Amino acid sequence: MAEPLTSEPRYGNRPTMKDVAARAGVGLKTVSRVVNGEPGVTSGTERRVREAIDALGFRRNDSARVLRKGRTATIGLVLEDLADPFYGQIGRAVEEVARAHGTLLINGSSARDPEREQELALALCARRVDGLVVIPAGDDHRYLEPEMRAGVATVFADRPAGLIDADTVLSDSFGGARDGVAHLIAHGHRRIGFVGDRPAVHTAAERLRGYRAAMEDAGLPVDERWVAPGSTDPERVTAAVTAMLSGPEPVTALFTGNNRVTVTAVRVLAARTASGGGRAPVAPVALVGFDDVELGDVLGLTVIAQDPAALGRTAAEHLFRRLAGTAEPPRHVVIGTRLLARGSGETPPPSP
Amino acid sequence: MAEPLTSEPRYGNRPTMKDVAARAGVGLKTVSRVVNGEPGVTSGTERRVREAIDALGFRRNDSARVLRKGRTATIGLVLEDLADPFYGQIGRAVEEVARAHGTLLINGSSARDPEREQELALALCARRVDGLVVIPAGDDHRYLEPEMRAGVATVFADRPAGLIDADTVLSDSFGGARDGVAHLIAHGHRRIGFVGDRPAVHTAAERLRGYRAAMEDAGLPVDERWVAPGSTDPERVTAAVTAMLSGPEPVTALFTGNNRVTVTAVRVLAARTASGGGRAPVAPVALVGFDDVELGDVLGLTVIAQDPAALGRTAAEHLFRRLAGTAEPPRHVVIGTRLLARGSGETPPPSP
Repeated sequence: MAEPLTSEPRYGNRPTMKDVAARAGVGLKTVSRVVNGEPGVTSGTERRVREAIDALGFRRNDSARVLRKGRTATIGLVLEDLADPFYGQIGRAVEEVARAHGTLLINGSSARDPEREQELALALCARRVDGLVVIPAGDDHRYLEPEMRAGVATVFADRPAGLIDADTVLSDSFGGARDGVAHLIAHGHRRIGFVGDRPAVHTAAERLRGYRAAMEDAGLPVDERWVAPGSTDPERVTAAVTAMLSGPEPVTALFTGNNRVTVTAVRVLAARTASGGGRAPVAPVALVGFDDVELGDVLGLTVIAQDPAALGRTAAEHLFRRLAGTAEPPRHVVIGTRLLARGSGETPPPSP
Repeated sequence: MAEPLTSEPRYGNRPTMKDVAARAGVGLKTVSRVVNGEPGVTSGTERRVREAIDALGFRRNDSARVLRKGRTATIGLVLEDLADPFYGQIGRAVEEVARAHGTLLINGSSARDPEREQELALALCARRVDGLVVIPAGDDHRYLEPEMRAGVATVFADRPAGLIDADTVLSDSFGGARDGVAHLIAHGHRRIGFVGDRPAVHTAAERLRGYRAAMEDAGLPVDERWVAPGSTDPERVTAAVTAMLSGPEPVTALFTGNNRVTVTAVRVLAARTASGGGRAPVAPVALVGFDDVELGDVLGLTVIAQDPAALGRTAAEHLFRRLAGTAEPPRHVVIGTRLLARGSGETPPPSP
């Protein structure tokens, strides 16, 4: 055990190169040469400087190096929510690519707040990241244009950039949702509910559009009581799902627009099945969710799976191509989804 | 739509204050005054400087400010794995506290690699974070002592610091595991398997110690074939669980040491139940896992739940107390766990 380090609090009171120079009895330039591994220092002087560095606990300040050199070998990632496993997987993929390029990834989350997204993205720029991967919370990214012009390579992932043309990597939200709803229709469903995220969120709007397209493709009318976009708050989702399952003509199937909504819908359906156990059997409700969830296989959950690792990897790789000097026009990549049929989406509607 | 920004790639070629000064026809000091909001500039000059800033896309470089001021209003978090929901929740809690203190959180992950942990922690220090929350991957943190002496407030979370005495916030791994195994014993089990993380991981060792203590408390012998610490790799866990369930005297209950192990054990048990459906019924196996998992409620999974939000919040709050100058000796906080009985841990052993 070392001595407790807190007996002598010196936070914010770091030794400087000047302190090192004074203690070693040498000039500032000599200390700088030693710290930066430059030639022109005798071994005896270097030893004196190193002893002073150790004694004072001096550490080189990369801030000074950034001022001298163009690049920092750091990229930033603006996530939406650190605690959402979907974004965690994107983050890990971006980090792996950054690491392969000898680059440090630093990230933070917007907590779904456009102002926080802006604050965080600009704070990362002010700390001189070479590039940014942004998962947008807001829909106006003109605030990033000066940064981009000044040289911060920027790629948007999961949702498009707002009001600027920039590199983006998205999942096929429209196509995936259309496939998922078509799957329910193919299993005999006609009254299908859609519960998704707020319509201001691009992916949520696209998935709703996919739902409507699948219904229209099949010539099925959409009763607006079956469509419930809104927050992913569990109370809101519970109320929306419960309402659709009530009344004389309840929906027989649900399409949920993302993993947060799916998790709550699964809870509502499970509670319903459990409560029906003792009395008249409750008609089973089919469910297809956009996004996979952990243990979705064990739960028998049919999903439209995105590939968050591919999203993150593709965005990061494109960022490094930009940093390497690629001058091609903004590229818009769309990554396909996969339907994983595991049971919940293949339940037929109750016989009329 | 704005003009594509990529037609003129200038990455790493940022305008400097010198460029602004040249364009505005003023001295460097004048530009510095305008950028930093200092007095002594006439409004006409200020306008010329601002026009030059806009035209060049100049942005203030916080690296320069760090050199002048002691604090950066940034803290760093070294996570183990961005994609593990447990760490995601710790990260979100730390971020909320940082935000309440007007501080930016930047983080990255060690990917369970002690060298990467060190590299990342030192890179964050070199970028002048005011403090660090570290979730250790390694067991020797002497490399951080010079940073801590130089003023980087540091708190360790989830696992203790190695070979240095420092602030730590841990879950009660030993007590939680003992409670979980005692719960299985109370439901009639005698042959109980333990599948956990590598024994070099402090929390894994503590949980194994809790398992042994509960068995000893009940006067039950431990067959070493029931004890399988190792990696959380799904193949390794699948093999370990399968081996314990085979042979003439299989275990009747499992205690899994963390959420990664639990997820795989649940898959093994679910596949076993499904495959037994057509033939002789497979004896059900009781399961208690350390850590909650998403939809564990719907799956009927009995767990020893940690409180990752409390871990992160407590660590971050203590970090800010250190930054505010608290000079008390290193504090070691242990946060209790909760047993959530949901079914899987209450299955009795098959009648002999």
